[in-house]
Amino acid sequence: MESKRNQEQWNPDKRGPKGFAAQMGDEASSEPQSPPRPQPAGGEHGMDEAVVREMGYQFVDMIVEYWKGLEGRRVYGPLSPVGLDEMFKESLPEQGAPLAEVLQEVRTRVFPNTMAIGSRRYFGMMNPAPMPVAVFAEALASAMNQNVASWRHAPSGTAIEKRVIRWLCDLFGLPETSFGTFVSGGSLANITALKLAINRALGRHLSQMDRGGPGQDIAKLVFYVSSQGHYSFDKAVDMLGIGRNQLRKIPQDDIFRIDLRFLEESIQADMAAGRKPACIIGIGGSTNTGSIDKLDKLAELARRYDCWFHVDAAYGGAVILSEMYGPMLRGIDQADSITVDPHKWFYMPFSAGGILVRDGDFLRQSFLVHPEYYMEKTSDGAEEPPEDRRGFHLGDKVNFFQYGVQGSRRLNALKLWMAFKMVGRRQYAAWVEKDIELARILAARIRRQDDFQILGPNTLGICNFRWQPQRPGGGSFTPEETDQLNRELQETVENDGDAWFSYTMLNGRVALRVNVENRCMGQSDIERLMTVIRRTADRILTTK
Amino acid sequence: MESKRNQEQWNPDKRGPKGFAAQMGDEASSEPQSPPRPQPAGGEHGMDEAVVREMGYQFVDMIVEYWKGLEGRRVYGPLSPVGLDEMFKESLPEQGAPLAEVLQEVRTRVFPNTMAIGSRRYFGMMNPAPMPVAVFAEALASAMNQNVASWRHAPSGTAIEKRVIRWLCDLFGLPETSFGTFVSGGSLANITALKLAINRALGRHLSQMDRGGPGQDIAKLVFYVSSQGHYSFDKAVDMLGIGRNQLRKIPQDDIFRIDLRFLEESIQADMAAGRKPACIIGIGGSTNTGSIDKLDKLAELARRYDCWFHVDAAYGGAVILSEMYGPMLRGIDQADSITVDPHKWFYMPFSAGGILVRDGDFLRQSFLVHPEYYMEKTSDGAEEPPEDRRGFHLGDKVNFFQYGVQGSRRLNALKLWMAFKMVGRRQYAAWVEKDIELARILAARIRRQDDFQILGPNTLGICNFRWQPQRPGGGSFTPEETDQLNRELQETVENDGDAWFSYTMLNGRVALRVNVENRCMGQSDIERLMTVIRRTADRILTTK
Repeated sequence: MESKRNQEQWNPDKRGPKGFAAQMGDEASSEPQSPPRPQPAGGEHGMDEAVVREMGYQFVDMIVEYWKGLEGRRVYGPLSPVGLDEMFKESLPEQGAPLAEVLQEVRTRVFPNTMAIGSRRYFGMMNPAPMPVAVFAEALASAMNQNVASWRHAPSGTAIEKRVIRWLCDLFGLPETSFGTFVSGGSLANITALKLAINRALGRHLSQMDRGGPGQDIAKLVFYVSSQGHYSFDKAVDMLGIGRNQLRKIPQDDIFRIDLRFLEESIQADMAAGRKPACIIGIGGSTNTGSIDKLDKLAELARRYDCWFHVDAAYGGAVILSEMYGPMLRGIDQADSITVDPHKWFYMPFSAGGILVRDGDFLRQSFLVHPEYYMEKTSDGAEEPPEDRRGFHLGDKVNFFQYGVQGSRRLNALKLWMAFKMVGRRQYAAWVEKDIELARILAARIRRQDDFQILGPNTLGICNFRWQPQRPGGGSFTPEETDQLNRELQETVENDGDAWFSYTMLNGRVALRVNVENRCMGQSDIERLMTVIRRTADRILTTK
Repeated sequence: MESKRNQEQWNPDKRGPKGFAAQMGDEASSEPQSPPRPQPAGGEHGMDEAVVREMGYQFVDMIVEYWKGLEGRRVYGPLSPVGLDEMFKESLPEQGAPLAEVLQEVRTRVFPNTMAIGSRRYFGMMNPAPMPVAVFAEALASAMNQNVASWRHAPSGTAIEKRVIRWLCDLFGLPETSFGTFVSGGSLANITALKLAINRALGRHLSQMDRGGPGQDIAKLVFYVSSQGHYSFDKAVDMLGIGRNQLRKIPQDDIFRIDLRFLEESIQADMAAGRKPACIIGIGGSTNTGSIDKLDKLAELARRYDCWFHVDAAYGGAVILSEMYGPMLRGIDQADSITVDPHKWFYMPFSAGGILVRDGDFLRQSFLVHPEYYMEKTSDGAEEPPEDRRGFHLGDKVNFFQYGVQGSRRLNALKLWMAFKMVGRRQYAAWVEKDIELARILAARIRRQDDFQILGPNTLGICNFRWQPQRPGGGSFTPEETDQLNRELQETVENDGDAWFSYTMLNGRVALRVNVENRCMGQSDIERLMTVIRRTADRILTTK
């Protein structure tokens, strides 16, 4: 182990008092003034091949150990930030420790204190059980460490990201003119979309270098999303220099879709008041319930009122993989922009968010900067790429930093590219369909319980329900008491550690929320969950 | 290999026409209507342990193969986006392929067509040769797939990110009240900082839910950065609803630092014109030259004119690790916010950007949202956390989505935490010092060439120089011809594949730019580079 440490630490403590430069002969002497510092062993990467390989294998063993351990452990236990912070409290180490020690710390401190995402008893918050091939692909991407900011620093990486973006655009039925980019997640995707909507509404964008700010015009813009919209839209409008009162939260209908009549009335009222409707946001799978807005109707409204049409399909976009369920997103092919997060229901580990844009060139114009150190040479020595290499089509040289807010960028597309190639669309579709069907099986089980009620639309892999028992001595609990009982049910299951699901608020009342996003889950896992819920509910009621 | 494929693909093609739900007995039947779908093999994670382990080892072998291959290969070759796009052109696969096939494609198509970042002959764009321990830690983070958006979905992960943020804040001398967050990169960090500056200047922030937009006030704000500022500031002001003409690009002095006299005059002129100076941006290591502004003087000016003081130390922040060179950042401890990118000179693979904020609570107020499904329960059933658990101090429950623009977040801090523990600050310092000193050795070599001139400040690990040969027949080349010669030199080295460095524009003229950011590089690598430059220059000149 000591030898590994010394391989990784290149000559740590042998620096003379005058520093390395002095030893190396800084000023014009080609002969070092002191014995030459040894060159790193093991070739270009500086480490002995066998040592690196052994280190990698140890990490793989750790990963297998973690996954294996998911079976026997609590899904989540009563953890305290006080205890955890104390556990990790230490000053920045001055000296290194052997790899084995660090791995042992991961084993004893990190592993037991995680949420067991990846467990077949975790029914959580759109954090998938990640595919092993994608997990290992993360290390592969990091090993190459290509910077998908510029084409030159990631030639094959750029080709892969372009290809995966094309696959996603094709899946959603966007035209050839569409393009997009991977981003850190749905929040960045949504903020990018709203920025494009602003640019479209105001007729300005970044590549017009000489322009001033948007001025008062921006204060007239209005954005529409259902009350089930993701919190990132609140952040987004604030970031973009817009008041949160310019984001209209339109009420939902009985299955949590945006109320179209109310939406159109709001648009008309805003126009009558001299405001400018800029963007209609449709939801393709809400976080709370998985509800899907009537996207085709929203597309129609967006055309009628000259609005940008954005669809937040961060979660639900994956159903486009399925011929059976894809039509639930009918109308998404008319979107101006689409948020889709492969790190949700494409079973990718974080991070792999995506933004797809119908008018790819408009995306580019909106983020086009030309730093001095990224100029493209042309054959005549000019600093601009030729016209036919300024786009994003097959054979065009794409610098992704010109297509979004990020600069340096990780090759997040690699893992999805490898996963798609390894399992194919049909297998993906089968997994997504299975998850949906498992959520329906749970709903069926819940319906058979007299004291439970289904609350959500149960469209995707989410099942929302509420426990509404009668008082043991007879009579009803108040709605507030029932809220508290549902919280207690969630909390008790959480603390027992046999399963994990969350709760949320639906129509002002507490609802339990189960989300299936695990390609390995089967019916037995749903039956087991139902047993846990039933048993826990019965136990709680005996204390009332 | 086939068996692996079938393990990964869970029962791909055996779905009946009625779908899985029908098979499973959707409606209240506990007996499936057709033979039950087989449960996935291999325990909770759904794959056989041995298969996963073998897959992981294969990826490790691939990584070792890639790193080993860096030695013999071209650093970068003349690649064409046309050829590459053709190579990766295929429709989304309907069916999967065996792992071995996919890995073979990586080997033959991806690997040979990368920029050899990580090679000791790559002197590029702040893309480091990543530390192996950090590369493998990426897979470990992905395997746990903790979502560092909320504490509950990453208990130990949150503790680790809090700890690493504390280490970084401590390194930069920020007070106990400081906090921060990992972001996807420097661009996101800079945009976050400017958002805070706007909020401070306008006295408003997101947690004030009822507020309208910033209105006309935002158009009065002015931001100051040197002309060496990163392009992300252009994007940032545009994103934030500010005109690019509100971002003043202040001229630089002779060693590429912001001109303080010019800066103060600009501030006074803006104030006289009724505008509001909102933010002074200092650069702690510019992309072009590594130049460092006089941060202590900028801090003074920021105090005098009531400006937010942001330091973009994305690149140069790493010198704070060194007792020898850390003082070059004198004054950074007075910053209101600091951008630091461990995926630059901390030798981390992408992505690991960071934003540190002096007033951590102000950061939180600026991004505080309370989605219904992330509420914290308290003992009395209320939905708000108790007052003493709303902060970010030791023992506080931090939900990182409330500290920045991102929602779902990867545990990017894990790799840096492991790297710090494995090698310690002193080793890190030695590497950074060595890189600086290698850049100085190169400068010394360049100075010995009569036909080369050093152009940059040579402060950090960057060496800027310009080839200025005489015409072979006697007489001088024009400056334009010399520009072209330098481009040709860079391009020839690039095409020969023996090394890679970039060129940029300094004071309107083409300058070559060598960046050392590889802990394994030694003096011999610099000597080799000098040989390549000398030989290539001589060869070019014979053709003139």
